[in-house]
Amino acid sequence: MGMGNDFLSSSDSNRAARPLPYARTVNFPEGMDLELGGRLDEVTVCYETYGELTPQADNAVLICHALSGDSHVARHEEADDAGWWETIVGPGKPIDTEQYFVICPNVLGGCRGTTGPNCINPVTGKPYGQDFPNITICDMVSLQKKLVDYLGVEKLLAVTGGSMGGQMVLCWAAIYPEASRAYIPIATAARLTSQSLAFDIVGRNAILHDPSFRDGQYYGHPQGPDIGLAIARMIGHITYLSRESMQLKFETDRHSPREVSTAFEKRFSVGSYLGYQGDRFVERFDANSYITLTMAMDLFDLGDNREALAKTIGATEGRWLILSYTSDWLFPPEESRLLTEALIRSGTRVSYCNVPSPYGHDSFLLEHNLEIYGELIRAFLANANGITIQEPAEAVSNSNTGSDTVSAPATGGRKQATVDPASIFHPDRLDYDRIIDLIPPGSSVLDLGCGHGELLYRLKQRGFEKLTGVELDEEAIVSCSRLGLDVLYLDLNQHLDPFLDGSYDYVVLSRTLQAVLDVEGLLAEIVRIGRRGIVSFPNFAYGKLRRMLFEQGRAPESEGVLRYKWYNTPNRRFFSIADFEDLCRERTIQVHRRVALDTEAQGEVVENPNYNADLAIFVISR
Amino acid sequence: MGMGNDFLSSSDSNRAARPLPYARTVNFPEGMDLELGGRLDEVTVCYETYGELTPQADNAVLICHALSGDSHVARHEEADDAGWWETIVGPGKPIDTEQYFVICPNVLGGCRGTTGPNCINPVTGKPYGQDFPNITICDMVSLQKKLVDYLGVEKLLAVTGGSMGGQMVLCWAAIYPEASRAYIPIATAARLTSQSLAFDIVGRNAILHDPSFRDGQYYGHPQGPDIGLAIARMIGHITYLSRESMQLKFETDRHSPREVSTAFEKRFSVGSYLGYQGDRFVERFDANSYITLTMAMDLFDLGDNREALAKTIGATEGRWLILSYTSDWLFPPEESRLLTEALIRSGTRVSYCNVPSPYGHDSFLLEHNLEIYGELIRAFLANANGITIQEPAEAVSNSNTGSDTVSAPATGGRKQATVDPASIFHPDRLDYDRIIDLIPPGSSVLDLGCGHGELLYRLKQRGFEKLTGVELDEEAIVSCSRLGLDVLYLDLNQHLDPFLDGSYDYVVLSRTLQAVLDVEGLLAEIVRIGRRGIVSFPNFAYGKLRRMLFEQGRAPESEGVLRYKWYNTPNRRFFSIADFEDLCRERTIQVHRRVALDTEAQGEVVENPNYNADLAIFVISR
Repeated sequence: MGMGNDFLSSSDSNRAARPLPYARTVNFPEGMDLELGGRLDEVTVCYETYGELTPQADNAVLICHALSGDSHVARHEEADDAGWWETIVGPGKPIDTEQYFVICPNVLGGCRGTTGPNCINPVTGKPYGQDFPNITICDMVSLQKKLVDYLGVEKLLAVTGGSMGGQMVLCWAAIYPEASRAYIPIATAARLTSQSLAFDIVGRNAILHDPSFRDGQYYGHPQGPDIGLAIARMIGHITYLSRESMQLKFETDRHSPREVSTAFEKRFSVGSYLGYQGDRFVERFDANSYITLTMAMDLFDLGDNREALAKTIGATEGRWLILSYTSDWLFPPEESRLLTEALIRSGTRVSYCNVPSPYGHDSFLLEHNLEIYGELIRAFLANANGITIQEPAEAVSNSNTGSDTVSAPATGGRKQATVDPASIFHPDRLDYDRIIDLIPPGSSVLDLGCGHGELLYRLKQRGFEKLTGVELDEEAIVSCSRLGLDVLYLDLNQHLDPFLDGSYDYVVLSRTLQAVLDVEGLLAEIVRIGRRGIVSFPNFAYGKLRRMLFEQGRAPESEGVLRYKWYNTPNRRFFSIADFEDLCRERTIQVHRRVALDTEAQGEVVENPNYNADLAIFVISR
Repeated sequence: MGMGNDFLSSSDSNRAARPLPYARTVNFPEGMDLELGGRLDEVTVCYETYGELTPQADNAVLICHALSGDSHVARHEEADDAGWWETIVGPGKPIDTEQYFVICPNVLGGCRGTTGPNCINPVTGKPYGQDFPNITICDMVSLQKKLVDYLGVEKLLAVTGGSMGGQMVLCWAAIYPEASRAYIPIATAARLTSQSLAFDIVGRNAILHDPSFRDGQYYGHPQGPDIGLAIARMIGHITYLSRESMQLKFETDRHSPREVSTAFEKRFSVGSYLGYQGDRFVERFDANSYITLTMAMDLFDLGDNREALAKTIGATEGRWLILSYTSDWLFPPEESRLLTEALIRSGTRVSYCNVPSPYGHDSFLLEHNLEIYGELIRAFLANANGITIQEPAEAVSNSNTGSDTVSAPATGGRKQATVDPASIFHPDRLDYDRIIDLIPPGSSVLDLGCGHGELLYRLKQRGFEKLTGVELDEEAIVSCSRLGLDVLYLDLNQHLDPFLDGSYDYVVLSRTLQAVLDVEGLLAEIVRIGRRGIVSFPNFAYGKLRRMLFEQGRAPESEGVLRYKWYNTPNRRFFSIADFEDLCRERTIQVHRRVALDTEAQGEVVENPNYNADLAIFVISR
């Protein structure tokens, strides 16, 4: 598995018609009614489990597979075949089968053991074929619920999955909002983009118009709609990769097709890959299932805006972790951000990360950046299970400074985190102490540019409960998650509008304003979202700085946040306490409190703060 | 045509099997040898012309069509059917048929009159079908050359086209480097990306494996490979649009398919569109041509790096205008930038613009931003024809400040340009006069952040010849082009490396350094590319500014480039003459000359310039 094995699909391990020796089946003779009408008179689920269910039945993690997956999510033992999510599931892995009881069923409509179009229709005694009813993602989930109940799990610890599996996670939230303590939808969306929809449609057209399709009753004939299914699969494969990853994979030997046996065009390297993938898929997948499942994905639609989505998925009790991948164009990151925004709006606890990856939609199956997304899953599951991995980071980071990519120091050190909670504070972060003093106990706090969670973690230790961070540094996001904090990958300059007016008691922006592109917009957002805003920044009119310019005629620089050279500083706004006060006055922002600090002398400044203080903290509101 | 007509393809007007009443044909009984071996014993070209050829035969513009186009590029009269490039070609349009003699032939291998697989093979007396030889883009161009010669045109004024047509333009440059005075490749590339290649391959597989394909000899049978061709076309259509434009086009009525007659899936709005497009295409296009032409596109490969490309296309005498569209993912802008870089490296005169558009690859056929790309074509053709549209802009712009998008003033006014060349200088641009004085006559000059071309145009008026601007503001690029200047859409922070060491006598960076992200990188590039660099910037240690901070404790602001507030300034680097000199010393950049100006007093400063000058100009080198 993975991009290294060129001719293994990265979306599926290549195990044509492999038996599933660890799979069990359960039959529900009562059948089920279907969302779009009609019913199945009986249903069977094929599933695999890993690990042990606790006596309290509180450690079950349900994994929902993607379009072409099955119940075999991971190895059961050394000698077993690799599963489709071997990177994530197994002993000691992010979804640790030594801690959790993992359940992975084949979906309704699939072709690997659960009731689907290739099963015998009890009414006719023949395979369903195209008589298989139109099913939806929610039908798949309803059947999963039956299984979970059957296994004696009243409340799941978590439900997770990528792509179509992620749609099922969303659907669980929509129809069983109390059934899980945590939801982890990955590389998915509340509805497909028109572009993704279009690719599915072309694939289905290729199958349905293959003369060997025979209206779906090709079973038993020597030739099925293999060409159509292979064409659909080839299109799918292009959409699972990214332009960049295809370039990496096929450019070095563009004109040297690999030696594969396929009747499809082999003129180019990428062609031999597609032909091979098409052929292999036909050996192990059923065309009617392909049609059934892609149609279910295409019909899935929980809402196209965050207000609608807040209604459909916002009623869950559980916490959420949403993951997208930067180069995924089949389920683009904006769709995951939309889900995140809907949950923010509905007041649900949510973390979100847009994981950097060049590998497109397939990224969620690959090793690349597992230290980000795998560790987020690990930490989040631990949190959901009531355990905080106390591993606060040493480095101080306030890197969420907009769309800038400043090379060096602003993104915080990529240092090994330390386990001593006492060491999480940078020695010069006197302002944290003061900020904490300014926040009444019990307040809800949104920390914009929260870095590795230093401030929020201190608040958490003091018993504060509703704490949320916003950050663009993925490693800092992992650190926050390990501290049990909710943290959101959002851009301060653009993405704060989902937060409702007055939805936090305090919104903190600590030592970040000087590096922000849209100062006015951000300040307006702070006082809109927070009943109070707390803004700290270096004072550019600090005497030492003034004198540097005045006496030496040189760009002022100093310790801490002003330690950079004029030509490489991540800071782009140079302003004083007086400047900030002027702006507040102009914009009728109320100033409730001003704390002026001399961080060198480690004390508060009373006299002429605009000259004597190097750092200021303002408490503001509308 | 255009996105408004939902069910007209934006790539083709819908004129199924329409006759081409204005088309003429010419037969070349001598035939032609083909690039990949083999020959055609005779060839016919179907073409249309517009306008009149001058007696000197110096106003001919050759237009090369895209995959599914034909010779009918535009109307010949009111009552005529619209052509495929009606936006660009016609009386008074950017390619003005009242000025130019326009030639548009159907390509070799096509199916609209020029020799192709649907023509009779003189050897067998049957249509070629798959016996039609493998042809290349260069074969198409060779045949075009025969036509151009036949029409009595020794040297073209310009050759242009988009997509596959753009590949032909590149091929003209590669094999007939003296045959044209200008080259305008649009939305194209020197080779397809692996992703684009993959889509073509799947399309061909769908056709070749359609049972009705009959190895290409389907002519005369009631049923051709219509399903396969329609599938290929559907895939194509997805790639011609962008994700954003599909969203715009199909989201409002996603679940309400339009009433179209098609056997393909119609469940979704986008599906009814694709089905319709697939069906219509089959009525007017030949599957063998589709295979022949896409294979020629896929085989096209002039080089995958700029050094290789400089060899293949860098030998032309003519000037170039390269156009790409921001949302084009089939022929992504990077590919056009690569072409541009190759030409920069080979010392060829080139202009490049990445035109903003949400409409994907199709953009080159649409009205959207015609005022940018249409006007660039118009101005460039005029320049190539020896005419400068003297329309210098009033506004001063130094907007190429990197990847920032600063909302307001940094991008220069979007004002109507004025025609008085005397008014092109902003009153306070004293520094221009000084900069011009510093450049010896006859020097070559690269102006980084050239705005509307104010400085370069003055140099041009004084007889300077090799003048190039770099700019990210598209309107400013149009202004420069109207002034007859070569101008490149490149990011100062990232894209200067194609310029060879010492390739310009002078590289100018005027009042821009204070807004640049990567100061050190840019300075290094300036002294690498220029034998001399000229850098002007506001002096932050100017007495008035020092005093504002020192005495008032407020962020300094002033006239001109420092006129902004601390919270909305596009400037991000605040430094003095002394700071700049320190950096030069540190980096062993030689300072040859320092001009310190007091722009208020409109004079040069001799005494204590770091205090008395508000603007400095440095002449530097390695």
